Amino acid sequence: MLLECGVALPDVHLAYETWGTPAPDRSNAVLILHALTGDSHVAAGPEQPTPGWWDGLIGPGRAVDTDRWWVVAPNVLGGCRGSTGPSSPAPDGRPWGSRWPKVTIRDQVAAEIALADALGVRSWAAVLGGSMGGMRALEWAVSAPSRVERLLLLATTAAASADQIAWASPQLHAIRSDPGWEGGDYYPGPGPVAGLGIARRIAHVTYRSEAELATRFGRNRQDSDRFAVESYLDHHAAKLVRRFDAGSYVTLTEGMNGHDVGRGRNGIADALRRITARTVVAGVDSDRLYPLAQQRELATHIAGAGELRVIRSPYGHDGFLIEVDQVGAIVADLLADQAARPMSNDRAGATRAAT
Amino acid sequence: MLLECGVALPDVHLAYETWGTPAPDRSNAVLILHALTGDSHVAAGPEQPTPGWWDGLIGPGRAVDTDRWWVVAPNVLGGCRGSTGPSSPAPDGRPWGSRWPKVTIRDQVAAEIALADALGVRSWAAVLGGSMGGMRALEWAVSAPSRVERLLLLATTAAASADQIAWASPQLHAIRSDPGWEGGDYYPGPGPVAGLGIARRIAHVTYRSEAELATRFGRNRQDSDRFAVESYLDHHAAKLVRRFDAGSYVTLTEGMNGHDVGRGRNGIADALRRITARTVVAGVDSDRLYPLAQQRELATHIAGAGELRVIRSPYGHDGFLIEVDQVGAIVADLLADQAARPMSNDRAGATRAAT
Repeated sequence: MLLECGVALPDVHLAYETWGTPAPDRSNAVLILHALTGDSHVAAGPEQPTPGWWDGLIGPGRAVDTDRWWVVAPNVLGGCRGSTGPSSPAPDGRPWGSRWPKVTIRDQVAAEIALADALGVRSWAAVLGGSMGGMRALEWAVSAPSRVERLLLLATTAAASADQIAWASPQLHAIRSDPGWEGGDYYPGPGPVAGLGIARRIAHVTYRSEAELATRFGRNRQDSDRFAVESYLDHHAAKLVRRFDAGSYVTLTEGMNGHDVGRGRNGIADALRRITARTVVAGVDSDRLYPLAQQRELATHIAGAGELRVIRSPYGHDGFLIEVDQVGAIVADLLADQAARPMSNDRAGATRAAT
Repeated sequence: MLLECGVALPDVHLAYETWGTPAPDRSNAVLILHALTGDSHVAAGPEQPTPGWWDGLIGPGRAVDTDRWWVVAPNVLGGCRGSTGPSSPAPDGRPWGSRWPKVTIRDQVAAEIALADALGVRSWAAVLGGSMGGMRALEWAVSAPSRVERLLLLATTAAASADQIAWASPQLHAIRSDPGWEGGDYYPGPGPVAGLGIARRIAHVTYRSEAELATRFGRNRQDSDRFAVESYLDHHAAKLVRRFDAGSYVTLTEGMNGHDVGRGRNGIADALRRITARTVVAGVDSDRLYPLAQQRELATHIAGAGELRVIRSPYGHDGFLIEVDQVGAIVADLLADQAARPMSNDRAGATRAAT
């Protein structure tokens, strides 16, 4: 595929997982898009019974009821969980490494559009995404409005903010300044283990809230050398390093930095006006990385989005993964037939009726 | 001196700078305590005319009027701007490096008490400190209450929180995992340049606010490779690396992590009850590293502290350095004679009259 940067990326593969049964016309297809270090394993399924990152949301009788919906979840382009990314072999058989091109959120969605074509999905009954997944869901609804009937934008933003780019800065430097990075050509070596761990520690703190850390850890000590909260971050760093590729972390982080749905579209407001999907925007009240103002901007400019849905949670940004009951209620509302769907207020009802 | 960890630290030096003229009985002595990467050069003076980190606050006719007050500002124990620290020679002539012992905020203040003794200051007319300097000011007022007549606690806390320790975690890892760290024994080499730069980037983002970064940088690009906010962080990283020692950064950060004024004193509330100084507590409304709740806790438990003074600023934690006019007004109030000092409300007035 031809990327925005002008590079032609040959031989693109997207890994994906499905749940439920597709209708012959694929009219029951729901697309779920994962966040930075997520993958296509959203929930346990017959082939992969291990819990997924949104377990409890998908299955018979659940918010995304697999007796009705056919759920598709791809691993993002540039990722490391089955889709083509920096650790994949280039045409010469060696890993892409430092040769991996710049991939934007729009490129990621273009690859997913090709996947939809291959799967015979003309139009998604719903596209659901949080955080980086929400950036892609948004891009889907703006670049292919006729192919998105319902849209959930969760804990995400119309454009990466200066603050988000600022938090990413030391993460990218930590990975690239680790000698194990070797300019990006460390495969099949262990890679920048320390650097990726540092990036994860920074990211993880941005994903939680001050109040939760205070309640959960306070000034408790793990041992004579470490506070409990330090040990907690060490644990999450080690866990990510075992399962995630640093090259993917870098390319996806830079993709998020570049995210601006209004780029080349006369700005954010005009871009959001292209959306025709029935849209719900939701955020987490304690999210300090994707603050509610970002979701409020989306809800304001997307016709018929109605009022912002606020998830009450102490967990910060990670609340969109943890508060499955509240997310489930929001998703169930969105997926319910329009007539049966409760309207949050008259304005929303009127606007929705007009779309 | 004997440190809390049990190590006897020989040959301790504290660098300090002074402004104004000491009264024969030193009754006009004011102690100013700097933050993590600060130093004794608080303001321009006759010997060092370059601007200091609180320039504008100190001088003839200023909030700390040097026609009246004799101002003393030491560099902290463990620092690298003239006081004994990890980069200083140990008795064997080699730098302390990895042999530098664990130094607590209480140790730092014990060294400053020895300095006061050497300077003939029985009692400080005022002790002023922000951030890490506020931790030391607080410790002064609790461990030597009779030697602190007035106290300003600015953008600081009674104890480092889980969140503050969490933000420090990737900073410490970034420095120590840099091969240039060499276990702490990198002197006189360049040391962990990349690691200290990463630490500074993380810290700097915590020192500012999301809104300020949005207003100032937004999604502007510096060049084809970098956003403006990335370039800004690169600049601050490079600047710190040129002027600050990574070993000092580590020992001072760990000292702050360990800060808990209530340790061994039956908790924070009991410790704060020891304070007899006329106290003002102030914080910055947009501070996300030392949120106002921390200063509210101090104001609540310190007798006669009155209401928390809130500095209105878009700059986050750094507001305590930047908002010199507002800080100056607070300092001037504190230094004014008790009778002449405006009371913020009846409760504060009544309580203060009782102390």
